[in-house]
Formats: sequence, structure tokens, C-alpha cells
Amino acid sequence: MLFDSPSTFGRAFRILTFGESHGAAVGVVMDGVKPGLPFDVEAIQRELDRRRPGQSDLVTPRSEADRVQVLSGVFEGLTTGHPIALAVFNENQKSSDYRAIADLFRPGHADLTYDRKYGLRDPRGGGRSSGRETLARVAAGAWAKQQLAALGVTVRGFNREIAGIAGTAVDWAFVESNPLRVADGEAFASQRAAVEAARAEGDSVGGVCEVWIEGLPVGLGDPAFGKLDGLLALACMSIGAVKGVELGAGFESARRRGSENNDPLGPAGPLKNDAGGTLGGISTGAPVVVRLAVKPTSSIAKAQKTIDRAGQPADISTKGRHDPCIAPRIVPVAEAMCALVIYDAWLTQQSLREGSVATLGEWDWTAVDALLARPL
Amino acid sequence: MLFDSPSTFGRAFRILTFGESHGAAVGVVMDGVKPGLPFDVEAIQRELDRRRPGQSDLVTPRSEADRVQVLSGVFEGLTTGHPIALAVFNENQKSSDYRAIADLFRPGHADLTYDRKYGLRDPRGGGRSSGRETLARVAAGAWAKQQLAALGVTVRGFNREIAGIAGTAVDWAFVESNPLRVADGEAFASQRAAVEAARAEGDSVGGVCEVWIEGLPVGLGDPAFGKLDGLLALACMSIGAVKGVELGAGFESARRRGSENNDPLGPAGPLKNDAGGTLGGISTGAPVVVRLAVKPTSSIAKAQKTIDRAGQPADISTKGRHDPCIAPRIVPVAEAMCALVIYDAWLTQQSLREGSVATLGEWDWTAVDALLARPL
Amino acid sequence: MLFDSPSTFGRAFRILTFGESHGAAVGVVMDGVKPGLPFDVEAIQRELDRRRPGQSDLVTPRSEADRVQVLSGVFEGLTTGHPIALAVFNENQKSSDYRAIADLFRPGHADLTYDRKYGLRDPRGGGRSSGRETLARVAAGAWAKQQLAALGVTVRGFNREIAGIAGTAVDWAFVESNPLRVADGEAFASQRAAVEAARAEGDSVGGVCEVWIEGLPVGLGDPAFGKLDGLLALACMSIGAVKGVELGAGFESARRRGSENNDPLGPAGPLKNDAGGTLGGISTGAPVVVRLAVKPTSSIAKAQKTIDRAGQPADISTKGRHDPCIAPRIVPVAEAMCALVIYDAWLTQQSLREGSVATLGEWDWTAVDALLARPL
Amino acid sequence: MLFDSPSTFGRAFRILTFGESHGAAVGVVMDGVKPGLPFDVEAIQRELDRRRPGQSDLVTPRSEADRVQVLSGVFEGLTTGHPIALAVFNENQKSSDYRAIADLFRPGHADLTYDRKYGLRDPRGGGRSSGRETLARVAAGAWAKQQLAALGVTVRGFNREIAGIAGTAVDWAFVESNPLRVADGEAFASQRAAVEAARAEGDSVGGVCEVWIEGLPVGLGDPAFGKLDGLLALACMSIGAVKGVELGAGFESARRRGSENNDPLGPAGPLKNDAGGTLGGISTGAPVVVRLAVKPTSSIAKAQKTIDRAGQPADISTKGRHDPCIAPRIVPVAEAMCALVIYDAWLTQQSLREGSVATLGEWDWTAVDALLARPL
Repeated sequence: MLFDSPSTFGRAFRILTFGESHGAAVGVVMDGVKPGLPFDVEAIQRELDRRRPGQSDLVTPRSEADRVQVLSGVFEGLTTGHPIALAVFNENQKSSDYRAIADLFRPGHADLTYDRKYGLRDPRGGGRSSGRETLARVAAGAWAKQQLAALGVTVRGFNREIAGIAGTAVDWAFVESNPLRVADGEAFASQRAAVEAARAEGDSVGGVCEVWIEGLPVGLGDPAFGKLDGLLALACMSIGAVKGVELGAGFESARRRGSENNDPLGPAGPLKNDAGGTLGGISTGAPVVVRLAVKPTSSIAKAQKTIDRAGQPADISTKGRHDPCIAPRIVPVAEAMCALVIYDAWLTQQSLREGSVATLGEWDWTAVDALLARPL
Repeated sequence: MLFDSPSTFGRAFRILTFGESHGAAVGVVMDGVKPGLPFDVEAIQRELDRRRPGQSDLVTPRSEADRVQVLSGVFEGLTTGHPIALAVFNENQKSSDYRAIADLFRPGHADLTYDRKYGLRDPRGGGRSSGRETLARVAAGAWAKQQLAALGVTVRGFNREIAGIAGTAVDWAFVESNPLRVADGEAFASQRAAVEAARAEGDSVGGVCEVWIEGLPVGLGDPAFGKLDGLLALACMSIGAVKGVELGAGFESARRRGSENNDPLGPAGPLKNDAGGTLGGISTGAPVVVRLAVKPTSSIAKAQKTIDRAGQPADISTKGRHDPCIAPRIVPVAEAMCALVIYDAWLTQQSLREGSVATLGEWDWTAVDALLARPL
Repeated sequence: MLFDSPSTFGRAFRILTFGESHGAAVGVVMDGVKPGLPFDVEAIQRELDRRRPGQSDLVTPRSEADRVQVLSGVFEGLTTGHPIALAVFNENQKSSDYRAIADLFRPGHADLTYDRKYGLRDPRGGGRSSGRETLARVAAGAWAKQQLAALGVTVRGFNREIAGIAGTAVDWAFVESNPLRVADGEAFASQRAAVEAARAEGDSVGGVCEVWIEGLPVGLGDPAFGKLDGLLALACMSIGAVKGVELGAGFESARRRGSENNDPLGPAGPLKNDAGGTLGGISTGAPVVVRLAVKPTSSIAKAQKTIDRAGQPADISTKGRHDPCIAPRIVPVAEAMCALVIYDAWLTQQSLREGSVATLGEWDWTAVDALLARPL
Repeated sequence: MLFDSPSTFGRAFRILTFGESHGAAVGVVMDGVKPGLPFDVEAIQRELDRRRPGQSDLVTPRSEADRVQVLSGVFEGLTTGHPIALAVFNENQKSSDYRAIADLFRPGHADLTYDRKYGLRDPRGGGRSSGRETLARVAAGAWAKQQLAALGVTVRGFNREIAGIAGTAVDWAFVESNPLRVADGEAFASQRAAVEAARAEGDSVGGVCEVWIEGLPVGLGDPAFGKLDGLLALACMSIGAVKGVELGAGFESARRRGSENNDPLGPAGPLKNDAGGTLGGISTGAPVVVRLAVKPTSSIAKAQKTIDRAGQPADISTKGRHDPCIAPRIVPVAEAMCALVIYDAWLTQQSLREGSVATLGEWDWTAVDALLARPL
């Protein structure tokens, strides 16, 4: 792993994101795109719509169309194999009201650290540190998801917990039909109530997002610093609100005996999947299961102690329309980041052993699917 | 972040590790080394000694000297600014007894995935997937730690939990004097008993390792994919036994209200440190606190179900001398990986703003130190 | 050197270019920009104007405004330290007349190789292989030139030869005032006549471009694959029309004795500069002199033999307004590429030895300047 | 192109070289090696033997065995897919006589620039700047050549010119049987006499090396900064003695008309090959022909003017056994660098279009071979 630029991600398939919350545009350049593939810009738009604000009464009511434009790399509907630049032009660039808080450092935000690191910052909506940067990730991830789907790999996520209330059932049909993107209809009512209570008090709550990557062949990922575990951890922990990540049984496995934690192997694959789909950092063919700790939204209406640029104490209370729980909008971002990792691992494997990916997976997939019947 | 090679790590300071468990040598090439610095090979050897087997009766009694040799990049005791290649030649290359298990896939190990991915594998002690690869990381990390120490930054770790038994006190003086590298003398007895019980039953236990990075200036780390959170997660989850990672309050923060989770700011820095030392992925000057979930050792004497290369069911029972708990030996590896991330971020900042690092930190450090008085 | 993406260039200062000749836009993302610097978009526009078609009667009369837009990374006129995305939207996207030649492979162009490599291509004006891609390089190079100028380093070029007619004098004041960007007023008339003669016959001519990089400290560049010689060669040979590159005495040095070719050293620096400003790939403080062989424009009105996509023989005659000699428009591109290499080397040196660049150069510069009095 | 580390080269197939002339060892780590391939260490040794000193009376009579050792990545004679570290341990590390010249900067060498850049240097034989570093390139290039040979691609070189005396015939059978590696038996006698005359006078001569890459499919290489032209230029100009590089007609093309320079296309491929095997930076299937300007050896017995570290004038005369012409030993290095570029392009193409390489080349190769009958 080479840490090239903080704005790039990937190896055989690489993205570079650019743009600020209230600058001219937020965008992404995708590089390493295969030529001759149909480019479905509406499929990308649909993923952006899943991330965009204003989807329900439980997220911020700000309404932004977030329409994506293709600047390069596509000719007559097909990819050319050259960089595809996508941009979403910001509609509301001229933020006039940021000056009031431009000199106050919002707790939980990057205001203080950006100011010290760079010596200056764009105070309009967080500038580069804004969650709006994830829009570029979702656009690129949508492409990765499309390519993976064509290979039989699905990447989908939901919130396992909201405000400390965990669901148990995983009803995928329910996920996209409820505003919290939770998967357990029974837990939903109390989860919703918790979010509404926080909002009513000018406060916010967090959640735990879970992503399932299914249909993988055996053999994706690499040793040492290229383990899927490590790359997925980087991918997920690079999302602003995420403060923890685990695979499979994760932190729970640290409290077990080896005889309990090891997944025995059978002719149809691992007999259980506490490892979360990897061994030695490489896919076993069982579903890869990633869990992300999403902190409560930092912007809250409640007054908090802070300092200004001069170091003087001050009180701050964030006005405006903020998400009382950001976890529902994190789900498409987490899916996008996981898809970028997996698609990249697929292309990398092609260069290692041409033709090998197609022959890697020989498990009895029905048996593997059965592993998902119970929550981890 | 560009995923270059799975065996490389870093940006301004880069390492490339090579070698297999029972090959000729395990080694590392460090690149991006500043010229004219004293190169203390004994300081590197001391860190290797902390990782090496045979340190106590609670880890594997195998005894390997693991003496490091300098192949390049040092002249008359000073670094020249050119790549420093370090190698530890393996003493016990001619493993005659691996053939018995060469066709059995050990549960919890990379045997199955390597075999499918590469079409062949080195079955002697895990080959490239062996924990022995971390020896190379510790050697390079020792250099990073030395450089950071000269800058006033310390990186040190301990085991917060062993076998699900958590300590509360953090007594650094105790850490290196007990075989589990735990920090709470009161919890040690029961932690030790748990490890011994597992060993007696041919089983193993896991733990939670915690690393503290103290003395940081404000402003290290980068936006987007270069957040310290993400890089530390990659660094730690790339260690074979690690299945989860969190910063600061981590997963606990997902269960809190925003008003509780946000760290208010005061003139002397953050008034608490639940964020674990970063905001927007960039250091706040407060200690960076990372926690790693270490799974129980996969190699156990108890019989387990598995398959052979032909896909036929078989029982496997790992013979030989294995660690009943690998967590004590993970501590120096985790420190090394965190040191590599932080030292690299420091050099990167130099290229962004020459002279800036020296002036970044203006906190009242005594106040910051006080944040460490209580466990997170 | 890691060959990451064919569309990226640089290390501490990196660019990614995107866009096709007749797509929506051609652009560049600059990454590794220092924060807090004034961003003068007009200075960038001026360099683009030097490259753009329609500047004189000796280049193509096509007129494109090529106005650059800033999409990100600048706030209130200052760089923020985040990626700066620049785009030039193409005015003439809807090329209706390319279909006539879409199935014919133009000799000297990438039509054939792109078609075979990608299985398809954008036939409008060459698509990604168009010289229009260099617009993005010039925009980024303009920024690098500005930063270098502030450090006392100038990068400037001229055409040493046109159509095989070499100039001897180097009159910088003359260079930007004549349409061929030659430096010798006496040779200009015959050079101009040669270009006009070729144009009248539906043909084209080439030239030799020379770039001088002056004001360098001692010590920029790196060993092995990071030699300035190698990086400048990559930079220049990556320009479509360039088929050869040399430093200092270049190919001439291969015909000399060592006693003649070596530059003796004196207290004020090298006593001559046949090495072209580097020793061991690292700057000596003497001017770096690079020479580029620019082939005659491939698009000519004269009929040529070719094949179509089906492999059938055909005649082709390029219609439309093409440059009878592209060398004048290569000059700003060559300057841009050299500036990118040097500025990147400067930033890289900062990360190697903080503060070192300022103290590297201790030569008597008047003596060094005197080296330029005679042509190499 | 990302300039990662000055000691690394490549993308899908990467190398990292380390070591100094008189340090413990010179070596290379090859990364991106495909698994399951027979590893023939003797084939690598044979290439090292072609580069090593003491081969004839026209190169330095120093005798070094330069035996290569395999440290990792090979198991039972097969590659494992993991990094292969190769090392040549230096036999003559304890150079006692360098102190006499440690404070004198040798003209034409990197002594001065290294001293200023790093603030110190290893004066024994040039340290990292020594031509001995190319040993690592030749070892890795030998592997690339083997892999290319299995794909039907050959990479071979000879000296077109020695001391300004050019050969015309290309008799490959003659090349490896004469000490100058020239290809024209008629020119050899006068070329040999020129080298001997220079040696007798304590002087040295240069040469022009030419590499032919034959059997390529159409479609290797990339646009923009990934053009084969650019990568080959970087590869060749990163060799210490090389001051110029050209493809095909090279500098000569700058003096031609377009109608003369363009290679017309026919059903069996390009009708001539003045482009040197690329169009738009991508292989046409015709042989890629690269020419390198090799300067005369800088180390000569004749007295030269220089300065010492204190900046005081001094005379210097290099004693010891040096090559009166380094060009013969540059040939295997140039082949190695070209092979690294081409093999890397091949692997990169696999990740772009799986299965595509096999179907890229559809030319009538006998016709292409005929293009080689005449010198370019």
C-alpha cells in the first residue's frame, strides 16, 4: 500500500475525489475503467439519490438535486477506457451566513484541525471536510457496484443498530423502505422514537452500519498490507463519522476461545462465518461482513463549549437543518467504499493470474447462503 | 491512497517487507530515510526481541535469535538517505515435518485461501502468511519510533483485555514486566489464569490491545482517504490476528447522544478525548488512542474439522509449540504499525508546509496529559 | 517510480488529466498544492493562450477560446491545500464530420493502436490521444512555473531548429514575438519560408525545442529511477509529437572523449555545462538544458496510404485546418512538463531535508550565468 | 505516473533496488511476480555475467563473481506470487583506499551533488550512485526477459556506434562474440582501435546503444504519461551514463517533412517503421527500436580540474582499473530496463482487458520482420 494522495483510492481501479461543500462542484475522476462497457449514468444518479439529503423527515430536510454530469471518458454511451470525470455542480455556492461561525471551531468537526494544519480553511459548510465529499465516493462506488453485479457479486448495507437499539432480523426488502435503513421491522418503531426524541431535544444519535458482500470467489485480496480486512478498514474508517470497524465476529472474537472462534471447514466451504469471509486477508467465498460504528451527528442545536480562532472560550449552537442521525445516509457511502475495495481486488487478481478469477470459486453456494440465516 | 503493492506501506516513509516463515530470510527495505541520522541497530534489535517467541512461559517456547543485519543505506553509523535493507536470516529453514500437514487446510489460517488464490503455497509454517512477516514491520517501526521519540512523540501499547477480562488501571511501569503486557496489576492474576487454563485444554484466548500515541502536534493526517483514523485502521487490521479496530470511544460512541459524544473545546485543547485524538481525521494534539481486537490463536491442539486439498473432510490438530495467546506479541507489532503511520504523516506535513510542524502545537500540554488520567 | 495511472504525473505535486478532444471538457486535478497561496487564474489563462490554436498564420487557424474554470480547492483567492480541479469546456463538442474518417486509420496517429488496444475509440479529433490533452498539462504547469518563479527558478523554452534549420543566437526577447518561437532572428526568415513551403504543398515540418531551467539550487533530483534526466525524459517523451530527448551535449557526448566531455569543477561551480545541469541525476546548480525532437505534424493534406478498420487499403488526405509545424505550440507544453518535474523535485527535497533547499545553492551565480553565453 | 520512490520502478510488475558499491550487498525486490512459474536462478546469473566487470581486455579488469542469492518468494523451484528478494553480497567491502579521494569531487560523477543533497555521502566507489546499482536492474530484467520470451517477445541490444564510429550491418550472431557488443564486423576493428587509443592515453570514449524489442502485439502502452515512448525514455535515461534517448527515427524525424516521416499503413502493418514501433505511445506490432547516447566513462587517468569539499581547487586523476568504454556493459542494462517496461505494460494490459493480449496481434509478422532488414 502506498499512501499516494489523500484524495485518491484504489490500485487497478482508482478514484480521485475533489471539491468542497460550497465550492463550484464536487466530483470524482475514475481511472482504470475498462473500455467498451455501457455507461449508465442513471444508475449512478440512483445511488446519489440514496445518499442525498431530504429523503425523509428523519434526515436533514435540505433539498439538493445533486445531478451528476459526465465530463469525459464516455463516447456514444460506452466507456472508452480513459478517465471518467464526473461532477455535481453545487447549487448553493454563495453561502452568506457562514461568516457568523467562521471563527468558531465546532466541536466534533474538523474546523480546529484544518485551521491549524493549513493555516486557513473554507468555513462554508466544512469545505473539504464536509460529508458532501462522500457524494463523489458514492458516484464511483455506483460504477464499482454495477461491475461487481455483472460478476455476480452484490454489496448491500443496512443499519444493525440505531441509538444503541439493535435489530436481529435481516429483512432486505424492508431496508430501503424505511427512513433509517434498518432491517428489522420490529426494532424500527423504537429506533425511530429514539431518533425523534434526540431531534426534539436538539440532539443526535449514532448507529452501527453493516455491509454484506456476497457472491465472492475464493482468492480476492492480498497478503500483508493488502489484506481485505485492512483495505475495508481503511475504506470505512475514512468516512468522517466512522470511529470503529470490525469484520465478522470482530471485537467479540477477542473474548472467545480459539476452538469456538475458528470456522471449521467442510467440502462446501466454511461451516460457519465468524471470520467474516476472509482468511489471511483473502476471501474465502463466504460473505464478507463489515460493521461500522457511526458516531452521532456532531452538529447539534444544543449549546456546547468551544473556542474561537483566537483561543477564547465561547458557546456554540449549530443552527440550520441537520441530520439527527446520519447513519441512514452512511449506508450508501459504506456500500460504495466496500464496492471500491472489492472491485479493485478483482481487477488486481486479473493481473496476477489471467483467467483465474473465473475458476476460483467452487463452493456449494447454497450452503454458503445458509450461513447468513443467523445474525453474526 | 493508492494501493500499490500488498507488501509496501507508507508515503514519504515507505517500507517493503519480504520473506517467508521458513525461507532464507525475512526482511524489510525502508525507503524515504532522512540522511545523516545515527543508525542504532541495537535499538532495532531490542524491538525485535520484544516480538520474538520464547520470551515467557505464556507464549510459544520456540527460541529464535532473530538477529537483524544491515544490508545497505548506512555508512560509518549514519544513514545515507538511500534505502536501508534489513534482513533476519531464518535459522530453521529446513522444516522436514511440514509435509504431514501440507495438504490439510488449517482452520483460521490462510492455507485454503492461498492455495486457491495462487494455485500453490509454501506450507512451511504458513510461508508468507506467517506471523513471522511482522518481524519486518517491527524492525521498520523501531526506526519510526526512534525518529518520533526525537520529535517528542511516544508510541506505546498494552493489552486492555485478555480472554475477555478487562483491566482498568494503566500502569506503564507494569506493562513490560509481565508476560501478557497488561497494564493493570490487579487484573493480571485472573488474566494469566485464563491463558493457562486455555493452554491446559489445548485451546487459546484472544485480547484487546490498546496503543497510545502521545506528544503529537495539532495537524497531522489528511482529509478524505488520508485520515489518521483510516490509515491507523489499515495499519492495524493488516496484522493477521486483528479483526476489529476503533479510535477513542469507538463502537461505544455509536450508542451515545451527540451532546455526550462531542468533545468540547477549551483554550488548552479538547476538554475530553472521546474522539481519540483526531477531528476530521487530523490530530488534535490530544493522545491518539487505538484499540485492536486480537482473535484467539488459530493453531490449537484441540481437534477441528477441516478439508484437504482434494476437498475431503479430515480432522486436524496442530502439534508443536504455539502461543496460547498471541496478544502479548501483538503489542510491539501494533506499536510499530502505528509509529509507521504517524512518522509518515509527519514527513508528509513537511512537504505540505515547510517548518509548519514545529509551530503546529500550541496547546497547554499539561492539560492534555490530564486527559489520560482516566480510562476511555 | 511507480507507474500508477497513465493519466497522472508527479509525486509530492501530482496532476491527473482527463478529457477528450471533442468530449464535454478537458481538465486537470492538481493535488499536493500548498495551502494559503494566492491563486492567479489569469496567469494560468495566459499560459493556455500561448498553447492555443489560432495564434498566427503559421499554426492552425482554428479559434478556440479555451477559458479555464476553477472547480475546487480555492477559497477567496487562496489555495486551501485541497485538490484544485480545473476544466476547459469544449465549445465544439458536436463534431458532425468525423464519421467520414471514423473507420480510416490516419498514419502517424493513434487511431490504429487505440482501436486495437481498447476495441473502440472516440474518433472525434483523436479523442484522448488528441494534442488537446496537453492543455491540461499547460494549466498545471503554469501553477508549477509560478511557484518556481517565487523560488527564483525560471523555466523557458524556444525552438532551436525548425525544418532542420538551426538557429545559433538565443535572443529571449525575440522568442515570444515571432510565430515560430525561435530565438535567432537571423535564422527566422528561412525557417518561416520552410514552414510556408511545406504548408503550400499540403505537407508539414518538424523542429527541435530547447528548454532552459535556470536558478536551480544544487541537490534537486534523486538517484536511480528518480534522476532528473530520467524524469525530464519521461516528461518530454510523453508529449505526443516528441520522438527524442537529450540533456546537455546529449547524443554529441557519445562521440567525445571523456577528457573533453567531463565538466571540470571550480569554486564557482562547473566550468562548463555539457552535462546539462545534472550529475548523477541531481542538479548541479548550472542551468538544466533539455532538447526535444518534435516530429512533423502527422495530419497533412497530401494523400497517404492507409487501411480501414476492416484492414482494407485506402488513401487518406486530412482536410481541415492543421498546423504545418506543431513545434511553436509544443514550446509551452515542454516548459510545463519540465516545470512539473522540477517543482515536484523541490517539494520532495523538502520532505527529505527540511530547510535544506534554501541552503543548497552556494555557487557564484554570475559565473554560472556566464555558461549560457555560448550555445551548447 | 506516480513518482513513488526513486529506487522503485514499475506498475503491475515492480522492482525496488537497494545497496551501495561497497556496502554489504546490492539487491532487488521484485514484486508483482505471478505464482507457479519456474524460477531459473541460473538464467538470472547469466545476465549478471554479461554485465559484470572483467569480461574482456576492453572493459575494467576488476574481477567480481557477483553471485546472486534468492532470499524469498521461491519454494521448491517455483515462484509463490510473493516478493522475490535477490541479493549479491559484495566481496570487497572494506575499501581502505577511498579516503584519499573522499574529499575530492570527481568531475562527471555524483560526488558533488550527493554531498550537497544529503550533507554526507558514502565515498567508496560512488556508494549508491555507483554503476553497480545497475546489477540489481539486470537481475530483475532477466526475469522480465524470461517472461517476455515465453510470450514470444525478444529484447536484445547492441552498440550502433563506438567513439563516433557507426556500424551499418546488424549481425546478431556477432554481437555477443565481440567485446564491444557491436553488430557490424567491418566497423569493429576501427571501433576497437579507438577504444584502445583512448585507454592508452588515460582517456575514455562513448557510444550509441540500440535495443530492439520484437514480437510485440499491437496495443501495449498507455496514453498521456503512460506512453511506451515516455516510459522507455525514463527507463533508459535513468541509467547513469545515458544523456539522450530516441525512438525510431528520433532526432532525424525533426528534420523531415510529414509526408516522408509518417509510416503509411498496409494490411500487413506499417509499411515502414520510422516511428520505432509506437503510435500515440502504444505498440503497433512493428519492432520497438530505442537508441541511447552513452557518454564516455567519467573516471579517467588524465588529470582534471576539480574542487574539494571545502571548495578549494585541486587536480584529480582517477587511479585504478576503469572501463575505457562503458557502452559494452550498458547493453545488458539497457535490455533489462526495456524488458521491465514492456513486461509491465503486458501485465497492465491484462488488468485492462482480460484475454485481450492474446488477440491483439493480427499482423502478418513476416512482413513486419522484413522491416528490420535495413537500419533505421
